[in-house]
Amino acid sequence: MTISAMNEAGQFSGLYLTAVSGAAKPILVSPLNGSQHVDNLEQPTFGFTVKWSFSDSTTVFVGQCFVDDQGEQTLQTMWLLRDKAKSVDDNWNATTVGTNVFTRIKGQNVGESVRSDL
Amino acid sequence: MTISAMNEAGQFSGLYLTAVSGAAKPILVSPLNGSQHVDNLEQPTFGFTVKWSFSDSTTVFVGQCFVDDQGEQTLQTMWLLRDKAKSVDDNWNATTVGTNVFTRIKGQNVGESVRSDL
Amino acid sequence: MTISAMNEAGQFSGLYLTAVSGAAKPILVSPLNGSQHVDNLEQPTFGFTVKWSFSDSTTVFVGQCFVDDQGEQTLQTMWLLRDKAKSVDDNWNATTVGTNVFTRIKGQNVGESVRSDL
Amino acid sequence: MTISAMNEAGQFSGLYLTAVSGAAKPILVSPLNGSQHVDNLEQPTFGFTVKWSFSDSTTVFVGQCFVDDQGEQTLQTMWLLRDKAKSVDDNWNATTVGTNVFTRIKGQNVGESVRSDL
Repeated sequence: MTISAMNEAGQFSGLYLTAVSGAAKPILVSPLNGSQHVDNLEQPTFGFTVKWSFSDSTTVFVGQCFVDDQGEQTLQTMWLLRDKAKSVDDNWNATTVGTNVFTRIKGQNVGESVRSDL
Repeated sequence: MTISAMNEAGQFSGLYLTAVSGAAKPILVSPLNGSQHVDNLEQPTFGFTVKWSFSDSTTVFVGQCFVDDQGEQTLQTMWLLRDKAKSVDDNWNATTVGTNVFTRIKGQNVGESVRSDL
Repeated sequence: MTISAMNEAGQFSGLYLTAVSGAAKPILVSPLNGSQHVDNLEQPTFGFTVKWSFSDSTTVFVGQCFVDDQGEQTLQTMWLLRDKAKSVDDNWNATTVGTNVFTRIKGQNVGESVRSDL
Repeated sequence: MTISAMNEAGQFSGLYLTAVSGAAKPILVSPLNGSQHVDNLEQPTFGFTVKWSFSDSTTVFVGQCFVDDQGEQTLQTMWLLRDKAKSVDDNWNATTVGTNVFTRIKGQNVGESVRSDL
């Protein structure tokens, strides 16, 4: 995941490349946008939406940035993956839930790149 | 919730006014941004992030737009509400989950205003 | 859903007949067991597990019993449906989440039978 | 967590001692009951309910038992923690969600004891 721009209000956009997929098509880099709290910069909460380029699904992530004693950043997130249901009758089981932890990729100063365990 | 703008890529922004809150401060209108699928316009999935103006929390919604036989739109969503944890040790119970259904407010043609059951 | 027995500790068992399924096989009545708080009887929280008879999946429900001004009981629940993953690599998207509301079926005094909106 | 008994139908009971709590009272060992699939023993799904002894809350866990190449068992679970709401109006944010991984405690043959990362 690469965050390419953030404005003063904390809104950002970027690109997401996942390692896992339930879709039949090849995985592609997908656009994301979201926002984080900027008024209280210490360990802010944030959220973002990924619109998958290779499927009709959408995932939202929400989490918090933690910094440990060594200054290492970790993004602790939970997500909801929404698959497209044929009709409202199939709405009941269209949402999958899980967790994801992101860590910063070392040596990358341009933008903010983080690596996921998924 | 009012969606004020959507670009060609399906990214949108807007404002969210909730009726419920666990925070001690008064509820304020809060900014949101997200995206929806535009390549297949029929009953698309979408997601968006709300950065609450009156707390350190963030909520993400993910869902799908359904249209019934009378042409009425319904947004079926699930959400994750992330509270700010003091440290990573308190991360485990910082995320609340729930559902929300939005319906369009009649007679409003400028922008897209929807009403929530929450 | 029919609750057939509850002991003094609040543990109960029963049967669940769902109206919806993602499995290919026919829906069958499935056993459930769980427990509720009995120390504070007013609007207790509870949870139960359904081991589906027609699939390898398991669902857990957790919720609370609310009583309105007319004395009508409503069980407000959320659930996690766990599908069987082939290996731990497929664990990430094996859990679906949703909500369910149960209401009591009138005129049934033997056991406790409730009707679900699913 | 210690599983003390399982019948032929896969229903089991036991005790849960958590390391984390949002309640003000001291943590106590709490009873659990649930069930697992027994018809297909390889990496079964399971679920169980914990009725907390030190609060009005209830947690349900659902997951799957995975065995790696070295024969080590891991229980991958997700959970919903239900707090008691004062009324149905406060129902919307009463459910917390998270993940938990359990591993077997070595050298314990009586019953089944597993250790949690929470």
